[in-house]
Amino acid sequence: MTYDRKVLHKMSYGLYVVTTEFAGKINGQIADAVMQVNAAPRQTVALSLNNDNYTTELVKRSGKLAVSILSQAYDPALIANFGLQSGRQADKFAAFPPKFTAEGLPYYEGAGFCGWLAGPVIEQMTVGSHTIFVIEAAEGQPTGDAEPLLYADYLAKKTRPAAKAEPAPAGDTPRWRCKVCGYIYEGELPPDYRCPICGVGADMFERV
Amino acid sequence: MTYDRKVLHKMSYGLYVVTTEFAGKINGQIADAVMQVNAAPRQTVALSLNNDNYTTELVKRSGKLAVSILSQAYDPALIANFGLQSGRQADKFAAFPPKFTAEGLPYYEGAGFCGWLAGPVIEQMTVGSHTIFVIEAAEGQPTGDAEPLLYADYLAKKTRPAAKAEPAPAGDTPRWRCKVCGYIYEGELPPDYRCPICGVGADMFERV
Repeated sequence: MTYDRKVLHKMSYGLYVVTTEFAGKINGQIADAVMQVNAAPRQTVALSLNNDNYTTELVKRSGKLAVSILSQAYDPALIANFGLQSGRQADKFAAFPPKFTAEGLPYYEGAGFCGWLAGPVIEQMTVGSHTIFVIEAAEGQPTGDAEPLLYADYLAKKTRPAAKAEPAPAGDTPRWRCKVCGYIYEGELPPDYRCPICGVGADMFERV
Repeated sequence: MTYDRKVLHKMSYGLYVVTTEFAGKINGQIADAVMQVNAAPRQTVALSLNNDNYTTELVKRSGKLAVSILSQAYDPALIANFGLQSGRQADKFAAFPPKFTAEGLPYYEGAGFCGWLAGPVIEQMTVGSHTIFVIEAAEGQPTGDAEPLLYADYLAKKTRPAAKAEPAPAGDTPRWRCKVCGYIYEGELPPDYRCPICGVGADMFERV
């Protein structure tokens, strides 16, 4: 028996903005790996975040996060905003002002979203490059009538943001663009490489 | 702020048959809460299973499982087979003969499926009524050309199996049917109740 990593493309996901706040700093990122864990006695949701991401760092400190669920009416610019830059350098909320929970967590509702939930991290587990956080859904509402955005829909519509026009690097360094979020990788792409922004594998990169 | 549990209906999932083998016993169940965790150095997948399920009991003993991904060409009878009875009483594989990995794990490919993967449990974490298992995808393939089945598609098509014609219970005992899988609950339905077969909440039950 062998393993063909493309089987993971057959798994289905929504798309989400995961946000948190720690000591006055707020940040967020795009995620697809989000799932319900159980319904009673409390409703819990698990999600997987890359340990290198600033959002992950803040969640580990704050122990709380919010998940805003993107709808079919999503704004591609919002995905670019949360997916193409790091909160270590940029204020991701400047162009997309969030609402805030009583706990101070930023979240989104209204146009482009179909629901949100927020709560404390009750369990977490590191698995290689990622951490699985389990939160209790302490607050949250379905909002709007739009259907949830599927990751597959997003790929199919190819509404990914255009890569910025950047000067070609000197020499023969190859450049690879993530077909999902537009992230640019420079150099030889390792077969096990995963997009640091949106998490897809090396097979989702195209040479540019 | 308040919490409206219907927000969790805005999360998107595929549908999967999760199978395992322990000491010659094989079993499987339907699941929707399955997600990729990371891609390197090994690809891992997390899933949430109800601790009361026989499949869960066997996975805890065997430390390995397979995930077969249902496609749009799925057979509703297969979902009924894996969702409406317990492997403690019935041989779920009699009507749907599986294939087997070299490790002895049953799985499905071909018509009605679009991929499968299998491997050892490398991490697990109990969260209330459920356990999150993380497996390494050691084997697996995408199979066929059909698109993955979405849980939302399954609900919308209402291809759920018809509830068996059972005699009404004596007295005034109310009966509730899961709108997803057809499971029947007798008695007053607790607001935090969750379907023991397919995992949806009490708001997905209708009185019959």
